[in-house]
Amino acid sequence: MAEQFAVEYDAMRRALALAASPGVPVGPNPRVGCVLLSPDGEVVAEGYHHGAGTPHAEVEALGAAGDRARGTTAVVTLEPCNHTGRTGPCSRALIEAGVARVVIAQRDPNPIAQGGLEVLAEAGIEVDAGLLAEDAEALNRAWTFAHRNGRPFVTWKFATTLDGRSAARDGSSRWVTSPAARRDTHLLRAQCDTMLVGTNTVAVDDPQLTVRDADGVPLPDQPLRVVLGNRDLPDDRRVFDDVAETVQLRTHDPRKALETLYREHGRHHVFFEGGPTLAAAFLKAGVVDEVVAYVAPLLLGSGKSAVGSLGIRTITGARRLDLLDTLVLMPTGDDDGTDINLRLTLRPREED
Amino acid sequence: MAEQFAVEYDAMRRALALAASPGVPVGPNPRVGCVLLSPDGEVVAEGYHHGAGTPHAEVEALGAAGDRARGTTAVVTLEPCNHTGRTGPCSRALIEAGVARVVIAQRDPNPIAQGGLEVLAEAGIEVDAGLLAEDAEALNRAWTFAHRNGRPFVTWKFATTLDGRSAARDGSSRWVTSPAARRDTHLLRAQCDTMLVGTNTVAVDDPQLTVRDADGVPLPDQPLRVVLGNRDLPDDRRVFDDVAETVQLRTHDPRKALETLYREHGRHHVFFEGGPTLAAAFLKAGVVDEVVAYVAPLLLGSGKSAVGSLGIRTITGARRLDLLDTLVLMPTGDDDGTDINLRLTLRPREED
Repeated sequence: MAEQFAVEYDAMRRALALAASPGVPVGPNPRVGCVLLSPDGEVVAEGYHHGAGTPHAEVEALGAAGDRARGTTAVVTLEPCNHTGRTGPCSRALIEAGVARVVIAQRDPNPIAQGGLEVLAEAGIEVDAGLLAEDAEALNRAWTFAHRNGRPFVTWKFATTLDGRSAARDGSSRWVTSPAARRDTHLLRAQCDTMLVGTNTVAVDDPQLTVRDADGVPLPDQPLRVVLGNRDLPDDRRVFDDVAETVQLRTHDPRKALETLYREHGRHHVFFEGGPTLAAAFLKAGVVDEVVAYVAPLLLGSGKSAVGSLGIRTITGARRLDLLDTLVLMPTGDDDGTDINLRLTLRPREED
Repeated sequence: MAEQFAVEYDAMRRALALAASPGVPVGPNPRVGCVLLSPDGEVVAEGYHHGAGTPHAEVEALGAAGDRARGTTAVVTLEPCNHTGRTGPCSRALIEAGVARVVIAQRDPNPIAQGGLEVLAEAGIEVDAGLLAEDAEALNRAWTFAHRNGRPFVTWKFATTLDGRSAARDGSSRWVTSPAARRDTHLLRAQCDTMLVGTNTVAVDDPQLTVRDADGVPLPDQPLRVVLGNRDLPDDRRVFDDVAETVQLRTHDPRKALETLYREHGRHHVFFEGGPTLAAAFLKAGVVDEVVAYVAPLLLGSGKSAVGSLGIRTITGARRLDLLDTLVLMPTGDDDGTDINLRLTLRPREED
């Protein structure tokens, strides 16, 4: 029994590594890995999901195994799906292939795909859930969060000087941060499926809100661009160009807007780069799940702050965050400047 | 010749290490080390300065060597002094001991102690200067700076939330930073000979401006407390207690005040913890030589900034700094909180 556990544990570690294979695009589907084990613990076949429109991990592994799938234990990072999407339900495929046992890490948090484990059990397959479940959830953090909470995970990014200014007195903010920090921002944007700002940012700063490479060329897969607010915007704003899709949500309720993005647009991870007023609204609504702050070694003495009034009067009322990571962004040889910027990653604490 | 250089180089490294011996108190005198080498390159004696009122490094080494000092090469981190302070001039002592050659790292920047090398040369001693001079200067950074510039080196320290607030809207700032950050501040204060704030900070925040240990007990050697500004202050302010000396300088000119602190009070290193108005005045006067910023993982959305108006309108006019060091201050087991604070050390760039 202990030996079987050790073999399945190792197989799950391998399945997690497969799921995290490089090159899998950000998209609506989770990263999933699968390993088929023979009754004596040998690896029969492996598979992982390569992105929307391609076979699920279990189907890929079953295809590679062929007849040898019969009697195996399927070790999968996520509960096999129970719905027919672009591919058939995986629970059905596992039953038909004659798999004897299924060990999964994470239960499926997606309401429309749940129930795969029960279907397997009813078909007489031995099922086990929860092995390395936390690791599996971390692999699809935003996806898991979105399905559990009915809204996308929100990463709020801002840039600031050492004295807390995101723009100078005349509104100019190009550039607060260094070239290395701006490249880093595009790497983070590329990991999200949605970019969000308010109408004021579009009207005043006119950002393109695209993911671009080091030469400034937009990448092929672009997040959805979302503009929040009732204000009408001129058509010539860069956010309305044809490099990516853009949606304007005519509401001021951050939570409602996020629920709409999940429900109607299937969005799981919003990269929020709004101005101080909208940032304050998101913070007050409790819908900021992660903060990424770029700190530039500048002093301005006046100018726009990153966040507007939170209605806090005294120091004990301050919103507390946990500092998760500090990254020192060194300038590279190609950069004009010599500025070292910092990237701080934080998580707002649950309010007491 | 190459061999002689190697021996003297090693001796200078040793002299620098001696100068940096732990336990030498912060005080008006520089850290100095001395090694006496016999003509065949053997170490005859060593010495270092233990602080004001104790023998200079050369005198300690000569005393240890006794008659064996005759014919040696004295390797000293700083040019031997040429004035009679609490001890006689070291140049005279080296001549009288019959030293044959003197190798120094740093020339003495103190106008009233200069000329030692010339006196030695006139007495027929072979002299050589500049070996590892930069290392020697770094050992007495503030002391060297003060004598060269006629004013103390200024370290400006401030604490800030992630969004650039040093206090909440009601003025409360206890505590923006974590217990670990506050302990770290006392370690930095202890390395300076002067603490400086403005009258407004004394009137409003009433800080004690002392160096205290982890239990809050003041240490025996306290920096001079300096209050800058014309405003009359009530006697009951904590800065006027008898734990340390306090001076009020009734001027608004930061540069003049600093020159006075050098000239009349022999001060070399000011730890400046002033509010936004005085911080802006120091920055505009170009007398901030180092910035230490404690960043706490809090958001306030409103409140006092660390620095007031610098007269900067646009982002290209921002004051630029070089980030020298980032320290992550972890909470210790005794702390109530779990906040991780950052300490950033920066140096303002020379204006273009």
